[in-house]
Amino acid sequence: MSAIRILVTGGTFDKEYDERAGNLFFQDTHVPEMLRLGRSALEVEVRTLMMVDSLDMSDADRANILEQCRSSPRERILITHGTDRMEVTARLLGPAIVDKTVVLTGAMVPYKFGSSDGLFNLGAALAFVQVLPHGVYVVMNGRALPWNRVRKNTKTGMFEEVEA
Amino acid sequence: MSAIRILVTGGTFDKEYDERAGNLFFQDTHVPEMLRLGRSALEVEVRTLMMVDSLDMSDADRANILEQCRSSPRERILITHGTDRMEVTARLLGPAIVDKTVVLTGAMVPYKFGSSDGLFNLGAALAFVQVLPHGVYVVMNGRALPWNRVRKNTKTGMFEEVEA
Amino acid sequence: MSAIRILVTGGTFDKEYDERAGNLFFQDTHVPEMLRLGRSALEVEVRTLMMVDSLDMSDADRANILEQCRSSPRERILITHGTDRMEVTARLLGPAIVDKTVVLTGAMVPYKFGSSDGLFNLGAALAFVQVLPHGVYVVMNGRALPWNRVRKNTKTGMFEEVEA
Amino acid sequence: MSAIRILVTGGTFDKEYDERAGNLFFQDTHVPEMLRLGRSALEVEVRTLMMVDSLDMSDADRANILEQCRSSPRERILITHGTDRMEVTARLLGPAIVDKTVVLTGAMVPYKFGSSDGLFNLGAALAFVQVLPHGVYVVMNGRALPWNRVRKNTKTGMFEEVEA
Repeated sequence: MSAIRILVTGGTFDKEYDERAGNLFFQDTHVPEMLRLGRSALEVEVRTLMMVDSLDMSDADRANILEQCRSSPRERILITHGTDRMEVTARLLGPAIVDKTVVLTGAMVPYKFGSSDGLFNLGAALAFVQVLPHGVYVVMNGRALPWNRVRKNTKTGMFEEVEA
Repeated sequence: MSAIRILVTGGTFDKEYDERAGNLFFQDTHVPEMLRLGRSALEVEVRTLMMVDSLDMSDADRANILEQCRSSPRERILITHGTDRMEVTARLLGPAIVDKTVVLTGAMVPYKFGSSDGLFNLGAALAFVQVLPHGVYVVMNGRALPWNRVRKNTKTGMFEEVEA
Repeated sequence: MSAIRILVTGGTFDKEYDERAGNLFFQDTHVPEMLRLGRSALEVEVRTLMMVDSLDMSDADRANILEQCRSSPRERILITHGTDRMEVTARLLGPAIVDKTVVLTGAMVPYKFGSSDGLFNLGAALAFVQVLPHGVYVVMNGRALPWNRVRKNTKTGMFEEVEA
Repeated sequence: MSAIRILVTGGTFDKEYDERAGNLFFQDTHVPEMLRLGRSALEVEVRTLMMVDSLDMSDADRANILEQCRSSPRERILITHGTDRMEVTARLLGPAIVDKTVVLTGAMVPYKFGSSDGLFNLGAALAFVQVLPHGVYVVMNGRALPWNRVRKNTKTGMFEEVEA
């Protein structure tokens, strides 16, 4: 199995608590720590592209992600991403990346907060990216949904399958 | 996607700390709690077959697991299992279950201990069981290894791929 | 030992992560849960006065806290409080409450975030409130500092002893 | 406030999970890590005397603890200790150490297991040792009980006050 490229963009996954300001902020990604905790034996290359809340992601940011997917020599790509605009990025990547397997994943609760869904999602995303056929998918709630059939239900926080 | 059957057999996954005796023991499985934490939207049926350390698993226990896989109306089966004898059960199931997808997973550190690999493994196992072709696999360390090509390295605690 | 009255005012102690909004908010106090975790055998009465960040505390809020201390039939009072304005409330209570032992405590990291100082502070505050002579104290960083000799160093986040 | 001497003897406080053997064992003490988590500003000297379950403590071990208390130049001493025989050590120290304040504390659940009472107990013990008069005390469940009036209820796991 060749290496999986992991592109870090921030999102709730990586939010931390700023003790002095009393609010949430981004510092370094926790992905390597999470891979150690999960005792991953996978060959991965972690690249931090940005550290932002997906609500703050600009078109230029998304263009950057797209370009990184296009130019990646790796066929299997995992993107950590804020959940609020995950489907927006997925819809940009979907039609453009057809010769690689790309999964986007994230978390509803920051990894550092003890009761996060992040580790579960990362495990699922790494599994799916190894075996799904080429295409772009959102991996949340234990499922992989194709880029053109996914929507976040903002009331429940769950990702639902919708008609393409 | 039809329901996934989850067969619980115990293992480190489900070990708890007995405050009065000062040692580890089994009580109820944590799988449903872990599914909630992971915000799983998958349809699953959880059945507890036994709650044992795999070192204490008897041939009768393994025969029970095999029979449960055979008689399951569900085509996708996830088995939580102690890591020490996971490959033994996998080698029993492998030749016998050829028309279903069965994954065995477990944990090196109990889920209740805060820094467990269990949630990562459960996420990965649920992903793999949905998409892998029929066969029996061990899912640990982010990988799915076929039943006849897996061995636990007792020194490192990692599951390695070996020749069939 | 007669009962200890615990007055809850909010603060970082009780902040939670709002998964949908992606920010921090107050819900119910975690003090009873923390007492259970600490296996406290103390007789306590928990009263929630408000659930606010101390930066948002008004003069009316502080007057309410003062009145609650004055009218308390209990001689030993523990107040959970945001750290940013803890010394302001302490300086209001100090000259006014001279026939009771009042300790204010809080946390730099929310209790729910896994690596909080809250449980340590609560243990220390409950110990100090049982044995210190009448007066008003801030209990943070393992120490009890008198109301008129304490200041939060906003750079380090530590509470320092200063000249009265 | 002069330095507090902390004598580490092991106990549940410091038990860790051995991933390979699947049982509990002792490695290094977590006391310094706990002090950092609690953001302690106290001057302390941590000395590891032994790392044992108190059920395995010998008379020689207890004599060692007594000698360490006797020879300590510090007047305030905190001992971390297994809970099962905490009262045995307390009864040895009680009549012998009359010119210092000694508190014994421990935990019912290992610190590393996420939902431990250890941090609460350490906070309380550090507070009590600063302000209690000379004597030997057991600090558990939020209380300080004198050495000759304490007994662990092995059914409930709580420390109770008994007649001297």
